[in-house]
Amino acid sequence: MRDMEWTKDTKSFRKNVRHGDWQKTTVGICPGYVQANLVILPKEFALDFTIFCLRNPQPCPILEILEPGDPMVHEIATDADIRTDLPMYRIFRDGKLIKEERDIRGYWRDDLVTFLIGCSYTFEEALVRGGVPIRNYLKQKDPGIYISNIPCRPAGIFFGPMVVTMRPIPPNLVSRAVQITSRFPKAHGAPVHVGEGASIGIPDLTKIDFGEIPEIEEGEVQVFWGCGVTPQMVALQSKIPFMITHKPCHMFVSDLTIEELAIS
Amino acid sequence: MRDMEWTKDTKSFRKNVRHGDWQKTTVGICPGYVQANLVILPKEFALDFTIFCLRNPQPCPILEILEPGDPMVHEIATDADIRTDLPMYRIFRDGKLIKEERDIRGYWRDDLVTFLIGCSYTFEEALVRGGVPIRNYLKQKDPGIYISNIPCRPAGIFFGPMVVTMRPIPPNLVSRAVQITSRFPKAHGAPVHVGEGASIGIPDLTKIDFGEIPEIEEGEVQVFWGCGVTPQMVALQSKIPFMITHKPCHMFVSDLTIEELAIS
Repeated sequence: MRDMEWTKDTKSFRKNVRHGDWQKTTVGICPGYVQANLVILPKEFALDFTIFCLRNPQPCPILEILEPGDPMVHEIATDADIRTDLPMYRIFRDGKLIKEERDIRGYWRDDLVTFLIGCSYTFEEALVRGGVPIRNYLKQKDPGIYISNIPCRPAGIFFGPMVVTMRPIPPNLVSRAVQITSRFPKAHGAPVHVGEGASIGIPDLTKIDFGEIPEIEEGEVQVFWGCGVTPQMVALQSKIPFMITHKPCHMFVSDLTIEELAIS
Repeated sequence: MRDMEWTKDTKSFRKNVRHGDWQKTTVGICPGYVQANLVILPKEFALDFTIFCLRNPQPCPILEILEPGDPMVHEIATDADIRTDLPMYRIFRDGKLIKEERDIRGYWRDDLVTFLIGCSYTFEEALVRGGVPIRNYLKQKDPGIYISNIPCRPAGIFFGPMVVTMRPIPPNLVSRAVQITSRFPKAHGAPVHVGEGASIGIPDLTKIDFGEIPEIEEGEVQVFWGCGVTPQMVALQSKIPFMITHKPCHMFVSDLTIEELAIS
Protein backbone atom coordinates (compact mmCIF):
# COMPACT_ATOMS: atom_id res chain seq x y z
CA MET A 1 0.00 0.00 0.00
CA ARG A 2 2.33 2.67 -1.31
CA ASP A 3 -0.26 5.40 -0.87
CA MET A 4 -0.37 4.70 2.89
CA GLU A 5 3.36 5.13 3.44
CA TRP A 6 2.58 8.40 5.24
CA THR A 7 1.02 6.42 8.10
CA LYS A 8 4.57 5.30 8.98
CA ASP A 9 6.18 8.75 9.09
CA THR A 10 5.19 10.92 12.03
CA LYS A 11 5.51 14.28 10.27
CA SER A 12 3.60 13.10 7.21
CA PHE A 13 0.94 11.50 9.39
CA ARG A 14 0.38 14.68 11.42
CA LYS A 15 0.25 16.75 8.19
CA ASN A 16 -2.49 14.49 6.81
CA VAL A 17 -4.37 14.64 10.11
CA ARG A 18 -4.09 18.45 10.00
CA HIS A 19 -5.70 18.46 6.55
CA GLY A 20 -8.56 16.29 7.76
CA ASP A 21 -7.44 13.15 5.88
CA TRP A 22 -7.37 10.87 8.95
CA GLN A 23 -10.12 10.94 11.58
CA LYS A 24 -9.72 7.37 12.78
CA THR A 25 -7.85 5.78 15.70
CA THR A 26 -4.07 5.88 15.82
CA VAL A 27 -3.76 2.19 16.81
CA GLY A 28 -0.94 0.72 14.71
CA ILE A 29 0.00 4.11 13.21
CA CYS A 30 3.72 5.00 12.88
CA PRO A 31 5.09 1.79 14.46
CA GLY A 32 8.10 2.45 16.69
CA TYR A 33 6.96 5.95 17.69
CA VAL A 34 5.56 7.12 21.00
CA GLN A 35 1.92 8.22 21.17
CA ALA A 36 0.44 10.45 23.86
CA ASN A 37 -2.76 11.21 25.74
CA LEU A 38 -3.92 14.84 25.64
CA VAL A 39 -5.41 16.96 28.42
CA ILE A 40 -5.90 20.73 27.97
CA LEU A 41 -7.00 22.79 31.01
CA PRO A 42 -7.29 26.47 31.97
CA LYS A 43 -4.16 27.80 33.66
CA GLU A 44 -5.82 28.23 37.04
CA PHE A 45 -6.09 24.43 37.39
CA ALA A 46 -2.80 23.57 35.73
CA LEU A 47 -0.48 23.65 38.75
CA ASP A 48 -2.70 21.36 40.83
CA PHE A 49 -3.09 19.04 37.85
CA THR A 50 0.68 18.94 37.34
CA ILE A 51 1.21 18.06 40.99
CA PHE A 52 -1.48 15.39 40.70
CA CYS A 53 0.32 13.83 37.73
CA LEU A 54 3.70 13.95 39.45
CA ARG A 55 2.22 12.26 42.52
CA ASN A 56 0.72 9.49 40.37
CA PRO A 57 3.39 8.80 37.78
CA GLN A 58 2.19 5.32 36.87
CA PRO A 59 -1.24 6.34 35.52
CA CYS A 60 -0.15 9.92 34.66
CA PRO A 61 3.41 10.01 33.26
CA ILE A 62 4.01 13.53 31.91
CA LEU A 63 5.79 13.58 28.54
CA GLU A 64 5.52 17.34 28.02
CA ILE A 65 3.64 20.37 29.36
CA LEU A 66 3.19 23.36 27.03
CA GLU A 67 3.28 26.86 28.48
CA PRO A 68 -0.04 28.75 28.84
CA GLY A 69 -1.46 29.72 25.44
CA ASP A 70 1.26 27.90 23.48
CA PRO A 71 -0.25 25.33 21.09
CA MET A 72 3.08 24.18 19.63
CA VAL A 73 4.83 21.04 20.85
CA HIS A 74 8.54 21.57 21.58
CA GLU A 75 10.02 18.48 23.24
CA ILE A 76 8.48 15.34 21.78
CA ALA A 77 7.75 16.60 18.25
CA THR A 78 8.60 19.47 15.91
CA ASP A 79 6.14 21.40 13.73
CA ALA A 80 3.23 19.96 15.68
CA ASP A 81 0.20 22.12 16.49
CA ILE A 82 -1.75 20.53 19.31
CA ARG A 83 -4.98 22.17 18.02
CA THR A 84 -5.01 20.42 14.64
CA ASP A 85 -2.70 17.43 14.73
CA LEU A 86 -4.83 14.86 16.55
CA PRO A 87 -7.51 12.96 14.59
CA MET A 88 -10.36 13.78 16.98
CA TYR A 89 -10.94 15.85 20.13
CA ARG A 90 -13.52 15.97 22.90
CA ILE A 91 -14.74 19.24 24.42
CA PHE A 92 -15.98 19.19 28.02
CA ARG A 93 -17.80 21.90 29.98
CA ASP A 94 -18.45 21.51 33.71
CA GLY A 95 -17.46 17.87 33.53
CA LYS A 96 -19.79 17.03 30.63
CA LEU A 97 -18.88 16.06 27.06
CA ILE A 98 -20.43 18.69 24.80
CA LYS A 99 -18.88 17.98 21.41
CA GLU A 100 -16.37 16.01 19.35
CA GLU A 101 -14.25 18.11 16.97
CA ARG A 102 -11.46 17.42 14.52
CA ASP A 103 -9.91 20.88 14.97
CA ILE A 104 -9.93 22.96 18.18
CA ARG A 105 -8.52 26.26 16.87
CA GLY A 106 -11.95 27.80 17.43
CA TYR A 107 -11.78 26.92 21.16
CA TRP A 108 -8.22 28.10 21.74
CA ARG A 109 -7.51 30.61 24.53
CA ASP A 110 -4.37 32.24 25.85
CA ASP A 111 -4.85 30.62 29.26
CA LEU A 112 -4.99 27.00 28.08
CA VAL A 113 -2.26 24.65 29.26
CA THR A 114 -1.60 21.42 27.34
CA PHE A 115 -0.49 18.15 28.96
CA LEU A 116 0.87 15.28 26.87
CA ILE A 117 0.79 12.09 28.89
CA GLY A 118 2.35 8.70 28.15
CA CYS A 119 0.30 5.95 26.55
CA SER A 120 0.30 2.19 26.75
CA TYR A 121 0.50 1.75 22.96
CA THR A 122 4.20 2.33 23.47
CA PHE A 123 4.78 -0.52 25.88
CA GLU A 124 2.46 -2.93 24.07
CA GLU A 125 4.71 -2.69 21.02
CA ALA A 126 7.80 -3.10 23.21
CA LEU A 127 6.26 -6.17 24.89
CA VAL A 128 5.46 -7.88 21.61
CA ARG A 129 8.93 -7.12 20.22
CA GLY A 130 10.37 -8.46 23.48
CA GLY A 131 8.64 -11.82 23.15
CA VAL A 132 5.52 -11.26 25.26
CA PRO A 133 2.43 -11.77 23.08
CA ILE A 134 -0.21 -9.14 23.91
CA ARG A 135 -3.49 -10.49 22.56
CA ASN A 136 -5.34 -7.17 22.31
CA TYR A 137 -2.41 -5.49 20.54
CA LEU A 138 -1.98 -8.32 18.05
CA LYS A 139 -5.71 -8.09 17.25
CA GLN A 140 -5.55 -4.27 17.13
CA LYS A 141 -8.01 -4.03 20.02
CA ASP A 142 -8.00 -2.06 23.23
CA PRO A 143 -7.29 -3.84 26.50
CA GLY A 144 -9.95 -4.04 29.18
CA ILE A 145 -9.96 -0.74 31.09
CA TYR A 146 -11.31 -0.63 34.65
CA ILE A 147 -11.85 1.91 37.40
CA SER A 148 -10.00 0.26 40.31
CA ASN A 149 -10.36 1.00 44.01
CA ILE A 150 -6.70 2.00 44.27
CA PRO A 151 -6.82 5.63 45.42
CA CYS A 152 -4.66 8.11 43.56
CA ARG A 153 -2.68 10.49 45.76
CA PRO A 154 -4.76 13.70 45.62
CA ALA A 155 -3.52 17.21 44.77
CA GLY A 156 -5.66 20.33 45.17
CA ILE A 157 -9.10 19.73 43.65
CA PHE A 158 -7.93 16.57 41.87
CA PHE A 159 -8.58 13.19 43.46
CA GLY A 160 -10.09 9.86 42.55
CA PRO A 161 -9.41 6.20 41.86
CA MET A 162 -6.73 4.89 39.53
CA VAL A 163 -7.96 3.63 36.17
CA VAL A 164 -6.06 0.52 35.11
CA THR A 165 -5.68 -1.65 32.03
CA MET A 166 -5.52 -5.44 32.26
CA ARG A 167 -3.61 -7.72 29.94
CA PRO A 168 -3.53 -11.50 30.54
CA ILE A 169 0.03 -12.88 30.53
CA PRO A 170 1.28 -16.50 30.69
CA PRO A 171 2.93 -17.19 34.11
CA ASN A 172 6.36 -17.82 32.58
CA LEU A 173 6.32 -14.40 30.86
CA VAL A 174 5.22 -12.21 33.78
CA SER A 175 8.84 -11.46 34.76
CA ARG A 176 9.64 -10.50 31.17
CA ALA A 177 6.56 -8.25 31.03
CA VAL A 178 7.65 -6.48 34.23
CA GLN A 179 11.24 -6.13 32.98
CA ILE A 180 10.22 -4.67 29.62
CA THR A 181 7.65 -2.20 30.94
CA SER A 182 9.99 -1.14 33.78
CA ARG A 183 12.14 0.43 31.04
CA PHE A 184 9.26 2.78 30.16
CA PRO A 185 8.28 4.82 33.23
CA LYS A 186 7.02 7.50 30.79
CA ALA A 187 4.57 4.96 29.35
CA HIS A 188 3.03 3.80 32.66
CA GLY A 189 6.06 1.69 33.67
CA ALA A 190 5.78 -1.63 35.51
CA PRO A 191 2.47 -3.24 36.46
CA VAL A 192 0.74 -1.82 39.55
CA HIS A 193 -0.94 -5.14 40.42
CA VAL A 194 -0.26 -8.74 39.44
CA GLY A 195 -2.92 -11.34 40.24
CA GLU A 196 -6.69 -11.44 40.72
CA GLY A 197 -8.39 -8.08 40.28
CA ALA A 198 -10.87 -8.70 43.13
CA SER A 199 -8.64 -7.07 45.75
CA ILE A 200 -8.48 -3.83 43.73
CA GLY A 201 -12.22 -3.70 43.10
CA ILE A 202 -12.30 -5.61 39.82
CA PRO A 203 -13.97 -8.95 40.61
CA ASP A 204 -15.39 -9.44 37.11
CA LEU A 205 -13.18 -8.73 34.11
CA THR A 206 -16.12 -8.81 31.69
CA LYS A 207 -17.48 -5.66 33.39
CA ILE A 208 -15.24 -3.17 31.62
CA ASP A 209 -15.52 0.56 32.20
CA PHE A 210 -13.73 1.41 28.92
CA GLY A 211 -11.83 -0.50 26.25
CA GLU A 212 -12.86 -3.98 25.17
CA ILE A 213 -13.72 -7.16 27.05
CA PRO A 214 -10.49 -9.18 27.24
CA GLU A 215 -10.07 -12.76 26.09
CA ILE A 216 -8.30 -14.72 28.82
CA GLU A 217 -6.92 -18.20 28.32
CA GLU A 218 -6.67 -20.92 30.96
CA GLY A 219 -3.76 -20.37 33.33
CA GLU A 220 -2.99 -16.80 32.29
CA VAL A 221 -2.26 -14.25 35.00
CA GLN A 222 -4.12 -10.95 35.29
CA VAL A 223 -1.59 -8.13 35.02
CA PHE A 224 -2.73 -4.54 35.62
CA TRP A 225 -1.02 -1.30 34.57
CA GLY A 226 -1.85 2.32 35.38
CA CYS A 227 -3.92 3.86 32.56
CA GLY A 228 -3.79 7.28 30.92
CA VAL A 229 -7.58 7.55 31.22
CA THR A 230 -6.96 8.31 34.92
CA PRO A 231 -6.05 12.00 34.56
CA GLN A 232 -9.07 12.67 32.31
CA MET A 233 -11.40 10.85 34.72
CA VAL A 234 -10.04 12.79 37.64
CA ALA A 235 -10.30 16.11 35.80
CA LEU A 236 -13.89 15.31 34.79
CA GLN A 237 -14.87 14.38 38.34
CA SER A 238 -13.56 17.72 39.61
CA LYS A 239 -16.06 19.40 37.24
CA ILE A 240 -13.66 22.10 36.09
CA PRO A 241 -15.51 24.50 33.76
CA PHE A 242 -13.57 23.76 30.56
CA MET A 243 -11.38 20.93 29.33
CA ILE A 244 -10.31 19.46 26.01
CA THR A 245 -8.97 15.92 25.54
CA HIS A 246 -8.29 13.59 22.64
CA LYS A 247 -11.06 11.16 21.75
CA PRO A 248 -10.04 7.78 23.22
CA CYS A 249 -7.62 5.92 20.90
CA HIS A 250 -7.19 9.06 18.73
CA MET A 251 -3.81 9.96 20.20
CA PHE A 252 -1.09 12.48 19.51
CA VAL A 253 1.65 10.78 17.45
CA SER A 254 5.06 12.15 18.53
CA ASP A 255 8.47 12.10 16.85
CA LEU A 256 9.99 10.27 19.81
CA THR A 257 11.00 6.67 19.17
CA ILE A 258 10.09 4.05 21.73
CA GLU A 259 13.79 3.46 22.38
CA GLU A 260 14.34 7.17 23.02
CA LEU A 261 11.75 6.88 25.80
CA ALA A 262 13.45 3.88 27.42
CA ILE A 263 15.50 4.54 30.54
CA SER A 264 17.98 1.73 29.97
CA MET B 1 26.84 -9.86 71.45
CA ARG B 2 30.44 -8.71 71.08
CA ASP B 3 31.76 -12.27 70.98
CA MET B 4 29.69 -12.99 67.87
CA GLU B 5 31.09 -10.08 65.85
CA TRP B 6 32.96 -12.65 63.74
CA THR B 7 29.65 -13.84 62.25
CA LYS B 8 29.51 -10.49 60.41
CA ASP B 9 32.98 -10.64 58.84
CA THR B 10 33.40 -13.17 56.04
CA LYS B 11 37.08 -13.94 56.64
CA SER B 12 36.61 -14.32 60.41
CA PHE B 13 33.53 -16.46 59.86
CA ARG B 14 35.31 -18.84 57.46
CA LYS B 15 38.26 -19.06 59.88
CA ASN B 16 35.93 -20.10 62.69
CA VAL B 17 34.19 -22.59 60.43
CA ARG B 18 37.62 -24.00 59.48
CA HIS B 19 38.41 -24.54 63.17
CA GLY B 20 35.13 -26.35 63.73
CA ASP B 21 33.51 -23.56 65.75
CA TRP B 22 30.39 -23.26 63.54
CA GLN B 23 28.55 -26.30 62.25
CA LYS B 24 25.14 -24.69 61.91
CA THR B 25 23.28 -23.10 58.99
CA THR B 26 24.57 -19.90 57.43
CA VAL B 27 21.11 -18.27 57.34
CA GLY B 28 21.58 -14.67 58.50
CA ILE B 29 25.38 -14.96 58.64
CA CYS B 30 27.49 -12.05 57.32
CA PRO B 31 24.59 -9.84 56.19
CA GLY B 32 25.29 -8.07 52.90
CA TYR B 33 27.55 -10.84 51.56
CA VAL B 34 26.85 -13.38 48.85
CA GLN B 35 26.53 -17.06 49.81
CA ALA B 36 26.95 -19.97 47.41
CA ASN B 37 25.83 -23.53 46.77
CA LEU B 38 28.63 -26.09 46.39
CA VAL B 39 28.91 -29.00 43.95
CA ILE B 40 32.17 -30.97 43.60
CA LEU B 41 32.44 -33.55 40.81
CA PRO B 42 35.16 -35.64 39.13
CA LYS B 43 36.70 -33.93 36.11
CA GLU B 44 35.24 -36.39 33.61
CA PHE B 45 31.73 -35.04 34.36
CA ALA B 46 32.71 -31.40 34.80
CA LEU B 47 32.38 -30.17 31.22
CA ASP B 48 28.89 -31.61 30.77
CA PHE B 49 27.90 -30.21 34.14
CA THR B 50 29.25 -26.77 33.19
CA ILE B 51 27.27 -26.83 29.96
CA PHE B 52 24.18 -27.90 31.90
CA CYS B 53 24.56 -24.94 34.26
CA LEU B 54 25.12 -22.50 31.40
CA ARG B 55 22.00 -23.79 29.64
CA ASN B 56 19.94 -23.35 32.80
CA PRO B 57 21.20 -20.10 34.29
CA GLN B 58 18.15 -19.39 36.43
CA PRO B 59 18.42 -22.47 38.67
CA CYS B 60 22.20 -22.89 38.14
CA PRO B 61 23.98 -19.51 38.01
CA ILE B 62 27.72 -20.20 38.12
CA LEU B 63 29.65 -17.87 40.44
CA GLU B 64 32.98 -19.62 40.08
CA ILE B 65 34.48 -22.89 38.84
CA LEU B 66 37.80 -24.03 40.34
CA GLU B 67 40.31 -25.83 38.16
CA PRO B 68 40.70 -29.61 38.62
CA GLY B 69 42.35 -30.45 41.93
CA ASP B 70 42.43 -26.81 43.12
CA PRO B 71 40.61 -26.41 46.46
CA MET B 72 41.27 -22.67 46.77
CA VAL B 73 38.67 -20.07 45.80
CA HIS B 74 40.09 -17.29 43.61
CA GLU B 75 37.29 -15.05 42.36
CA ILE B 76 34.61 -14.66 45.01
CA ALA B 77 36.80 -14.98 48.12
CA THR B 78 40.44 -14.93 49.18
CA ASP B 79 42.13 -17.36 51.57
CA ALA B 80 39.19 -19.71 51.29
CA ASP B 81 39.73 -23.49 51.19
CA ILE B 82 36.65 -25.17 49.78
CA ARG B 83 37.49 -28.38 51.75
CA THR B 84 37.26 -26.81 55.22
CA ASP B 85 35.41 -23.51 55.01
CA LEU B 86 31.78 -24.66 54.83
CA PRO B 87 30.01 -25.69 58.05
CA MET B 88 28.87 -29.09 56.79
CA TYR B 89 29.27 -31.27 53.70
CA ARG B 90 27.49 -34.24 52.18
CA ILE B 91 29.33 -37.09 50.47
CA PHE B 92 27.51 -39.02 47.74
CA ARG B 93 28.50 -42.26 46.02
CA ASP B 94 26.54 -43.57 43.04
CA GLY B 95 23.78 -41.08 43.72
CA LYS B 96 23.39 -42.02 47.40
CA LEU B 97 24.20 -39.93 50.46
CA ILE B 98 26.81 -41.88 52.42
CA LYS B 99 28.01 -39.39 55.03
CA GLU B 100 27.92 -35.86 56.41
CA GLU B 101 31.33 -34.35 57.21
CA ARG B 102 32.58 -31.04 58.49
CA ASP B 103 35.91 -31.32 56.65
CA ILE B 104 36.50 -33.05 53.29
CA ARG B 105 40.30 -32.94 53.10
CA GLY B 106 40.29 -36.73 53.51
CA TYR B 107 38.18 -37.09 50.36
CA TRP B 108 40.14 -34.68 48.20
CA ARG B 109 41.48 -35.84 44.82
CA ASP B 110 43.41 -34.16 42.05
CA ASP B 111 40.58 -34.69 39.60
CA LEU B 112 37.86 -32.95 41.61
CA VAL B 113 36.26 -29.83 40.10
CA THR B 114 34.42 -27.39 42.36
CA PHE B 115 31.35 -25.39 41.32
CA LEU B 116 30.12 -22.44 43.37
CA ILE B 117 26.56 -21.62 42.38
CA GLY B 118 24.43 -18.59 43.30
CA CYS B 119 21.99 -18.78 46.19
CA SER B 120 18.65 -17.17 46.94
CA TYR B 121 19.79 -15.87 50.35
CA THR B 122 21.33 -13.04 48.33
CA PHE B 123 18.15 -11.88 46.69
CA GLU B 124 15.97 -12.39 49.78
CA GLU B 125 18.08 -9.80 51.58
CA ALA B 126 17.91 -7.48 48.55
CA LEU B 127 14.11 -7.88 48.40
CA VAL B 128 13.63 -7.01 52.06
CA ARG B 129 15.95 -4.00 51.79
CA GLY B 130 14.01 -2.98 48.67
CA GLY B 131 10.68 -2.92 50.46
CA VAL B 132 9.34 -6.39 49.62
CA PRO B 133 8.71 -8.30 52.86
CA ILE B 134 9.78 -11.94 52.48
CA ARG B 135 8.06 -13.84 55.26
CA ASN B 136 10.41 -16.83 55.36
CA TYR B 137 13.49 -14.59 55.40
CA LEU B 138 12.13 -12.37 58.17
CA LYS B 139 11.40 -15.50 60.24
CA GLN B 140 14.81 -17.00 59.34
CA LYS B 141 13.12 -19.94 57.65
CA ASP B 142 13.61 -21.59 54.29
CA PRO B 143 11.05 -21.01 51.54
CA GLY B 144 8.99 -23.89 50.21
CA ILE B 145 11.12 -25.82 47.70
CA TYR B 146 9.41 -27.91 45.01
CA ILE B 147 10.37 -30.17 42.13
CA SER B 148 8.45 -28.58 39.25
CA ASN B 149 7.57 -30.13 35.91
CA ILE B 150 9.54 -27.45 34.03
CA PRO B 151 12.21 -29.43 32.14
CA CYS B 152 15.77 -28.18 32.36
CA ARG B 153 17.64 -28.04 29.06
CA PRO B 154 19.78 -31.22 29.18
CA ALA B 155 23.54 -31.47 28.60
CA GLY B 156 25.38 -34.79 28.25
CA ILE B 157 24.30 -37.11 31.07
CA PHE B 158 22.64 -34.29 33.01
CA PHE B 159 18.90 -33.76 32.69
CA GLY B 160 15.87 -33.40 34.90
CA PRO B 161 13.19 -31.03 36.16
CA MET B 162 13.83 -27.56 37.55
CA VAL B 163 13.62 -27.27 41.32
CA VAL B 164 11.95 -23.99 42.33
CA THR B 165 11.38 -21.96 45.47
CA MET B 166 8.06 -20.21 46.14
CA ARG B 167 7.60 -16.98 48.05
CA PRO B 168 4.15 -15.41 48.42
CA ILE B 169 4.12 -11.72 47.41
CA PRO B 170 1.33 -9.11 47.71
CA PRO B 171 -0.02 -8.23 44.19
CA ASN B 172 1.15 -4.61 44.41
CA LEU B 173 4.74 -5.71 45.11
CA VAL B 174 5.17 -8.34 42.39
CA SER B 175 6.64 -5.79 39.94
CA ARG B 176 9.09 -4.62 42.60
CA ALA B 177 10.08 -8.24 43.35
CA VAL B 178 10.76 -8.86 39.65
CA GLN B 179 12.71 -5.60 39.31
CA ILE B 180 14.91 -6.29 42.31
CA THR B 181 15.70 -9.91 41.51
CA SER B 182 16.31 -9.06 37.83
CA ARG B 183 19.41 -7.21 39.05
CA PHE B 184 20.83 -10.51 40.34
CA PRO B 185 21.12 -13.01 37.48
CA LYS B 186 23.93 -14.67 39.46
CA ALA B 187 21.49 -15.32 42.31
CA HIS B 188 18.71 -16.95 40.23
CA GLY B 189 17.50 -13.68 38.71
CA ALA B 190 13.84 -12.92 38.01
CA PRO B 191 10.99 -15.31 38.82
CA VAL B 192 10.48 -18.18 36.37
CA HIS B 193 6.73 -18.40 37.06
CA VAL B 194 4.21 -16.00 38.58
CA GLY B 195 0.78 -17.35 39.51
CA GLU B 196 -0.73 -20.68 40.54
CA GLY B 197 1.78 -23.51 40.74
CA ALA B 198 -0.63 -26.09 39.30
CA SER B 199 0.50 -25.52 35.71
CA ILE B 200 4.12 -26.30 36.63
CA GLY B 201 3.24 -29.45 38.58
CA ILE B 202 2.82 -27.88 42.02
CA PRO B 203 -0.91 -28.06 42.78
CA ASP B 204 -0.49 -28.21 46.58
CA LEU B 205 2.00 -25.85 48.23
CA THR B 206 1.89 -27.76 51.52
CA LYS B 207 3.51 -30.73 49.74
CA ILE B 208 7.06 -29.45 49.84
CA ASP B 209 9.99 -31.45 48.49
CA PHE B 210 12.54 -29.48 50.54
CA GLY B 211 12.54 -26.33 52.67
CA GLU B 212 9.62 -25.42 54.88
CA ILE B 213 5.86 -25.25 54.32
CA PRO B 214 5.11 -21.63 53.42
CA GLU B 215 2.59 -19.41 55.19
CA ILE B 216 0.45 -17.69 52.57
CA GLU B 217 -1.92 -14.86 53.36
CA GLU B 218 -5.20 -14.12 51.57
CA GLY B 219 -4.67 -12.42 48.23
CA GLU B 220 -0.93 -13.07 47.97
CA VAL B 221 0.48 -14.22 44.66
CA GLN B 222 2.62 -17.34 44.28
CA VAL B 223 5.99 -16.32 42.86
CA PHE B 224 8.49 -19.02 41.86
CA TRP B 225 12.24 -18.70 41.35
CA GLY B 226 14.79 -21.21 40.05
CA CYS B 227 16.51 -22.97 42.95
CA GLY B 228 20.15 -23.97 43.52
CA VAL B 229 19.02 -27.44 44.61
CA THR B 230 18.45 -28.13 40.89
CA PRO B 231 22.09 -28.87 39.95
CA GLN B 232 22.53 -31.22 42.94
CA MET B 233 19.28 -33.04 42.13
CA VAL B 234 20.28 -33.43 38.51
CA ALA B 235 23.77 -34.66 39.44
CA LEU B 236 22.28 -37.16 41.88
CA GLN B 237 19.81 -38.49 39.31
CA SER B 238 22.63 -39.12 36.86
CA LYS B 239 24.17 -41.44 39.50
CA ILE B 240 27.71 -40.26 38.96
CA PRO B 241 30.06 -42.34 41.13
CA PHE B 242 31.28 -39.55 43.42
CA MET B 243 30.03 -36.11 44.42
CA ILE B 244 30.38 -33.74 47.34
CA THR B 245 27.93 -30.92 48.12
CA HIS B 246 27.25 -28.60 51.03
CA LYS B 247 24.58 -29.72 53.48
CA PRO B 248 21.43 -27.72 52.61
CA CYS B 249 21.50 -24.23 54.22
CA HIS B 250 25.18 -24.71 55.21
CA MET B 251 26.52 -22.54 52.41
CA PHE B 252 29.85 -21.12 51.36
CA VAL B 253 30.08 -17.50 52.59
CA SER B 254 31.96 -15.41 50.00
CA ASP B 255 33.70 -12.04 50.22
CA LEU B 256 31.48 -10.64 47.46
CA THR B 257 28.95 -8.03 48.54
CA ILE B 258 25.41 -8.29 47.25
CA GLU B 259 25.86 -4.98 45.40
CA GLU B 260 29.01 -6.30 43.71
CA LEU B 261 26.86 -9.10 42.29
CA ALA B 262 24.20 -6.71 40.95
CA ILE B 263 24.25 -5.99 37.22
CA SER B 264 22.84 -2.47 37.46
